[in-house]
Amino acid sequence: MKRTLSALAKNKPGVLADIATEFSKSEANILSLAAGETEQAEISRIVIRLEGNDAAIDDAEQTLKNLDAIIQIDDLSRKDFVDRELVMIKIAMSPGNTGQLMQIFEVFRANVVGMGQETITVELSGDQERIEGLIQMLVPYGIKSLCRSGMIALKRGDE
Amino acid sequence: MKRTLSALAKNKPGVLADIATEFSKSEANILSLAAGETEQAEISRIVIRLEGNDAAIDDAEQTLKNLDAIIQIDDLSRKDFVDRELVMIKIAMSPGNTGQLMQIFEVFRANVVGMGQETITVELSGDQERIEGLIQMLVPYGIKSLCRSGMIALKRGDE
Repeated sequence: MKRTLSALAKNKPGVLADIATEFSKSEANILSLAAGETEQAEISRIVIRLEGNDAAIDDAEQTLKNLDAIIQIDDLSRKDFVDRELVMIKIAMSPGNTGQLMQIFEVFRANVVGMGQETITVELSGDQERIEGLIQMLVPYGIKSLCRSGMIALKRGDE
Repeated sequence: MKRTLSALAKNKPGVLADIATEFSKSEANILSLAAGETEQAEISRIVIRLEGNDAAIDDAEQTLKNLDAIIQIDDLSRKDFVDRELVMIKIAMSPGNTGQLMQIFEVFRANVVGMGQETITVELSGDQERIEGLIQMLVPYGIKSLCRSGMIALKRGDE
């Protein structure tokens, strides 16, 4: 089963290693991981998408909760949250397909962030469905390079 | 010194743990890490922002290059690349400040993705300066929650 966990952790060397090691011990596969600063410089937020045995993931979550560096862990799979992901894609471009590509970018509201002689690079932020949708549309044109941020998420509402 | 590395790695349990552990041994602090799928389902791209001793980071990079699961590592600090980051921010909102907030969102072209009784949530993708700029503008209003994806990056041009 796929699960999404969000952790608040102290900014100390080794914290990410501890988290990744704990889930690797539980044999869960980390589908994506996004770790970045929060509004407080000494605290990071880490959002992890996992696939694996539910009970094993629960155990790993429990072990991590006991670490000094971990302030809080939420299971976002069980709560209502807004999720977003960022993707950058470099696509093969030729005079013959530029118009079609531009139409696709417009439909998905993807922004062009770079252009070479033979490629064009766009960015899109959106939920997983929208990101997957754009990628599927662009595959036939030839994707040269692709980078995804992994999912980030915040709880809905005022909480 | 701050460094940005981009790795292509096989999608296997434990790879992220190996990478994080190696940099933690070199006593480099991981400022952000973004790991997500690429155009090939069995390969992940991992972008890491690090701060620490240059020679120690070089050593860790070399050790990782020898791992079977690591396909390629590029030092983006030394190459010309397009970088982007995604942020979601939940801000305290009252009838008196809604207009001002909306003006800030318009200037930064930030998108509203959620609204509660007392908060509003926006997303913005951009380079580090733009993200930092928006955060600084919003601090006085009261940031309730903030999630950053960490930097993602692709080489400029056709390569």
